Amino acid sequence: MKFIHTADWHLGKLVHGVYMTEDQREILNQFIHLVEEEQPDAVVIAGDLYDRSVPPTSAVDLLDEILYKINVELKTPVVAIGGNHDSAERLSFGSSWYKQSKLYLTSKLTDDLRPVHINGVNFYSIPYAEPGTVRQLLADDSIHSHHDAMKALVGKIEETMNHHEANVLVGHAFVLGGQTSDSERTLSVGGSGCVNAELFEPFSYTALGHLHSPDAIKHEKVKYSGSLLKYSFSEATQRKAVSIIEMNENGDFELRSRSLTPKQDMRELEGHLEELLDPHFYQKQCCDDYLKITLLDEGALIDPINKLRQVYPNVLHLERKAALTDMKKKRSFTSVKEEKKSELDLFAQFYNEMTTSEFSTDKREIMVSVIEKVLKEEGRK
Amino acid sequence: MKFIHTADWHLGKLVHGVYMTEDQREILNQFIHLVEEEQPDAVVIAGDLYDRSVPPTSAVDLLDEILYKINVELKTPVVAIGGNHDSAERLSFGSSWYKQSKLYLTSKLTDDLRPVHINGVNFYSIPYAEPGTVRQLLADDSIHSHHDAMKALVGKIEETMNHHEANVLVGHAFVLGGQTSDSERTLSVGGSGCVNAELFEPFSYTALGHLHSPDAIKHEKVKYSGSLLKYSFSEATQRKAVSIIEMNENGDFELRSRSLTPKQDMRELEGHLEELLDPHFYQKQCCDDYLKITLLDEGALIDPINKLRQVYPNVLHLERKAALTDMKKKRSFTSVKEEKKSELDLFAQFYNEMTTSEFSTDKREIMVSVIEKVLKEEGRK
Repeated sequence: MKFIHTADWHLGKLVHGVYMTEDQREILNQFIHLVEEEQPDAVVIAGDLYDRSVPPTSAVDLLDEILYKINVELKTPVVAIGGNHDSAERLSFGSSWYKQSKLYLTSKLTDDLRPVHINGVNFYSIPYAEPGTVRQLLADDSIHSHHDAMKALVGKIEETMNHHEANVLVGHAFVLGGQTSDSERTLSVGGSGCVNAELFEPFSYTALGHLHSPDAIKHEKVKYSGSLLKYSFSEATQRKAVSIIEMNENGDFELRSRSLTPKQDMRELEGHLEELLDPHFYQKQCCDDYLKITLLDEGALIDPINKLRQVYPNVLHLERKAALTDMKKKRSFTSVKEEKKSELDLFAQFYNEMTTSEFSTDKREIMVSVIEKVLKEEGRK
Repeated sequence: MKFIHTADWHLGKLVHGVYMTEDQREILNQFIHLVEEEQPDAVVIAGDLYDRSVPPTSAVDLLDEILYKINVELKTPVVAIGGNHDSAERLSFGSSWYKQSKLYLTSKLTDDLRPVHINGVNFYSIPYAEPGTVRQLLADDSIHSHHDAMKALVGKIEETMNHHEANVLVGHAFVLGGQTSDSERTLSVGGSGCVNAELFEPFSYTALGHLHSPDAIKHEKVKYSGSLLKYSFSEATQRKAVSIIEMNENGDFELRSRSLTPKQDMRELEGHLEELLDPHFYQKQCCDDYLKITLLDEGALIDPINKLRQVYPNVLHLERKAALTDMKKKRSFTSVKEEKKSELDLFAQFYNEMTTSEFSTDKREIMVSVIEKVLKEEGRK
């Protein structure tokens, strides 16, 4: 049994003021050719089909067209879930009808966690949901973090799951060990957004969405496919691909990766203005790429962005190295990973990174009382 | 062959700050019982399923649920179109899948005007579209008004239509002779939004949406079903119903009307404050109704709205007769019906009604040049 794992299409994405819809159409057409070639038994899309809860109508049109080609024209079953960028309610409209042609779209979490069977493999869909939603749904007051929520949901699945069969989980989460980029909206602060990969042990394969690099996590059977396109300059050096999984009835599988080539790459370029505008230099470049340019010049420059755009029409972001150095303190946000800090420590750190004033004792006292109050309301104290 | 004609559900409607979603759920559940009783061969919904292009998620949920009950659970084919309140693109998402279970939802106008055949009747769907859209779609520069657009579309349908069969048009338009209410968003000014009923002559029956009263037009075979609920106080005295049509294969039909009873009526109440608060009076009233109250008292009153709300919890609007008289000039908007005025005259009239200052010669000159420019761009001059 063969399926393709993809995720994080982010249709309707706006990158530095530019709608990516046409780039998305181009790459999705490549994806459709790939589906035609591979003839998989299913396509799995692990969340963030859209970039936001109310996407532009061009993105709505595009998703409709692409899903129609894959599911109806190519007669390929599709298992798709909602991600944290999708609106659970808006995306789920019509799901009951889609099932008739084996488009299984689950964007609203319910307590029905039964799998979909496709050619000997059971696909369990867990769309993105806030811990509070899961707490309410399962009437389990002990659920506070994404990890708690996922653990409870997997526990519920295990109650009826046959471990001797091939079982695939489709989920959208920040799984511990993954590396974030700028275009992945943070699920929450303080590490409570993280889910530990060990939860997925019962499954033959876990098809994840949320992190945009296929290399975000090193795990034998818990995998991100990565996004279809680069959606921020922090993803400039990431490879972009989809995963092709061939699985037998015991759940043993082989995975290979197939990359897609965007019409325009997204990359960073650094140099002095004069050098970048020199034909000897730029004639060797793909000048149409989406670029973040960092100028090394010191001192005043006259209208550098317009000069650069005459050669590189898609400069999305221009920086000056000198200015950067000044702002260094401000920009070095601390990435929160495995460490578990108290809410107060996290806020103090955030305050120090975002402002130039001191996090004084009175301020600290105010935050202590706010945090106390919130924890009390959440029933954690 | 029997079908039910309804329209203008306006899911997600906000009336005087109150979401009508629960009232809509209640009335739609009554509608479902009616469908169960009548067992029609089809349900026709002639546009404005939602109240706006991005409806609240509760409205999205409700439409999904109701269409599922009618179409999938009761196995009733549905012919539905988009109205001027719907977003053509957003509502049309998934249409291709819905067809498989005979839910024919057309919210985006295309040049494919082929009918759907249900038990011997051909249903032609013309979703709401701006004249400009139709002009572009049919590449016909002579289309400027809604009448022109509808004429061209009907002309295109007639090219392939068999006049000896039963043909039903489903449309969303302001058909001439219809009476407007406050909750029907004006299609355009100056009478160019009107469509003449004679255009629908080729059809056995024309199932219209847009105007909210089933009595909006007196015509043998061109009919509005009216909205399911009262959506403004100007509809307070209108009856609300759906139409049941039984049609033979020649297109001859009988129509009867079945009314629906809302949980709370919407009506107007007039009197002195003391009288309205007198138990002898209010005990005979349905105090939970949505009310517009006009107080006849002169002089100062202390907090009348809160006193009234203790008896009538759903007062949506309170007016003072005395204040009304002062504002009379300001409020007497002129209703534009069959008369065809020039754009300049229309604007002058609008300016005089909306402001207290004079529409002077300089202002007139500015408008003349603006109108000239617009007409030029539209290719009408």
